[in-house]
Amino acid sequence: MHTIAPELQVAAWLNTRGALSLQQLRGKVVAIYAFQMLCPGCVSHGIPQAKAIRAAFSDQEVAVIGLHSVFEHHDVMTRKALEAFVHEYRIQFPVAIDQPSSDGAIPLTMERYGLRGTPTLLLIDRQGRLRHSHFGRVDDMAVGAQIGRLLGEVAAAPSAVQCDDTACSIG
Amino acid sequence: MHTIAPELQVAAWLNTRGALSLQQLRGKVVAIYAFQMLCPGCVSHGIPQAKAIRAAFSDQEVAVIGLHSVFEHHDVMTRKALEAFVHEYRIQFPVAIDQPSSDGAIPLTMERYGLRGTPTLLLIDRQGRLRHSHFGRVDDMAVGAQIGRLLGEVAAAPSAVQCDDTACSIG
Amino acid sequence: MHTIAPELQVAAWLNTRGALSLQQLRGKVVAIYAFQMLCPGCVSHGIPQAKAIRAAFSDQEVAVIGLHSVFEHHDVMTRKALEAFVHEYRIQFPVAIDQPSSDGAIPLTMERYGLRGTPTLLLIDRQGRLRHSHFGRVDDMAVGAQIGRLLGEVAAAPSAVQCDDTACSIG
Amino acid sequence: MHTIAPELQVAAWLNTRGALSLQQLRGKVVAIYAFQMLCPGCVSHGIPQAKAIRAAFSDQEVAVIGLHSVFEHHDVMTRKALEAFVHEYRIQFPVAIDQPSSDGAIPLTMERYGLRGTPTLLLIDRQGRLRHSHFGRVDDMAVGAQIGRLLGEVAAAPSAVQCDDTACSIG
Repeated sequence: MHTIAPELQVAAWLNTRGALSLQQLRGKVVAIYAFQMLCPGCVSHGIPQAKAIRAAFSDQEVAVIGLHSVFEHHDVMTRKALEAFVHEYRIQFPVAIDQPSSDGAIPLTMERYGLRGTPTLLLIDRQGRLRHSHFGRVDDMAVGAQIGRLLGEVAAAPSAVQCDDTACSIG
Repeated sequence: MHTIAPELQVAAWLNTRGALSLQQLRGKVVAIYAFQMLCPGCVSHGIPQAKAIRAAFSDQEVAVIGLHSVFEHHDVMTRKALEAFVHEYRIQFPVAIDQPSSDGAIPLTMERYGLRGTPTLLLIDRQGRLRHSHFGRVDDMAVGAQIGRLLGEVAAAPSAVQCDDTACSIG
Repeated sequence: MHTIAPELQVAAWLNTRGALSLQQLRGKVVAIYAFQMLCPGCVSHGIPQAKAIRAAFSDQEVAVIGLHSVFEHHDVMTRKALEAFVHEYRIQFPVAIDQPSSDGAIPLTMERYGLRGTPTLLLIDRQGRLRHSHFGRVDDMAVGAQIGRLLGEVAAAPSAVQCDDTACSIG
Repeated sequence: MHTIAPELQVAAWLNTRGALSLQQLRGKVVAIYAFQMLCPGCVSHGIPQAKAIRAAFSDQEVAVIGLHSVFEHHDVMTRKALEAFVHEYRIQFPVAIDQPSSDGAIPLTMERYGLRGTPTLLLIDRQGRLRHSHFGRVDDMAVGAQIGRLLGEVAAAPSAVQCDDTACSIG
């Protein structure tokens, strides 16, 4: 039994015209790569793997989204710093800045999804359900296999699911 | 329109009790890695990728087979040499020795499949049809995706296909 | 004919108690790695190579110094951001922050040495003379060889050279 | 106190016109890479490192020699097999086939030098003395450094050392 992935809570988007929502991506597999620009494993492994996903699949079938979930060094991993990072590392997929918490270090999407840290890869199926979550390093072969399997599944009728800001229901 | 993959023509098998046939593997995805033990790209890329396939998928779903298709240096890439190679490189999946031709350099399976060289990865679906052929280097992400997709497809009824030594028919 | 390497012009030092000077390092080979924290080639190649130099040689013989020469994205590659970077990437050698220019993008040491960009590796011999400068990627084997050769040379009498803030003379 | 490296005992040479001797290479640093063509670590690490040494240094200063020291699978690592290997892996430096023992698995040079296995890198200085021996994996940076240091040392007068087939003396 897989639950519908809750919407991302986003302070700002880079590399996209207007905000994205998981609901509007229903019908595609969505790969969300949570990262921090000053996290060494994200830079050496996560970002290249996100690019590899984008290269291996059609964007008609798979949407790749970066999620900048800052939970340390908040004062230097700012939006401006991230923009420089995205430029220098030639990241071309949309990047969401995880909404900072008003009273804690963990940003809201990271909290909502219960992420353990960065990098974390989340894979969401065509029906919008969270199917896989990988914290740390995971092989390209295994990621390709999971996405390939999700693509082989039949997509749900997009109208069947309804979501508001905090919850989704099938009805 | 994909054709049924013809059976391998095999002089001998290593790492398996008795000969394998594609027909008996019907229902699984089959990854055949054609290689030569003295081919640098096979050693640096092909063999590790074959191992990665084996690690990423259950052998209930995906069968990995090495195919030693010698088309040069025939006098030194002998069965005994291959056995030493398989031992030293810790190859644990079944390896078929492609049947040498009586009148040419190209062994029979390589000829029948029209392979351009080594390494070549052949992917066969659950219904026994040849679906992908990759000569040279191909990314793990892409291979994982193709196998994952094939696994998502419904398997045909195994009895529907009949093969003899040189041809297969659905009937 | 090699000239005495001019002193670094440094806004602040990290990972060291008190400022370092090339003059006080006379007698050692000095490897200066100019980098920027948001430069991908510096992160993937330069920093690991600087660590490899440090691991391969005794710090009695070779001093490794990072030089953070920011010539773009000045507003986000701040001292605080660099401190976070140095912490996350576990950099343990001294890092000098190249003195920003009051009227241009290029910091003062970068200007004085005529560096083309980052990463750049500068190798200074035991007599304080600039002997090699590598912009971009250079093999570990070649770097090891150059440092090894410099170590084989006889060190000059340290008192023979006198430097002030902008120039050095042998006298 | 370093001893003069004994001459290699060689069944045959590849990639060279006539036999080489350490005595005739006196004045150069000599890097001898002991390997077996079916040793995975030799293929993935040793051969590429031998090529890197050759690329980083002038052959006027450093001689690179492969030493095929077969101590297992003797029946398949034959001269003909080695020739195919050398061709396929584009090895261009001279390769000596270590003289097989008449009554044991260990070939004569391997025995004489007391090598523990393959790959092993031996570094001989300009005076013909064995200075470093590395069994297994060693970093390019460290190898470059050791060769660089040896190059910095003054070469002995070549005539000072006299060797016959089994021993060398200075005088």
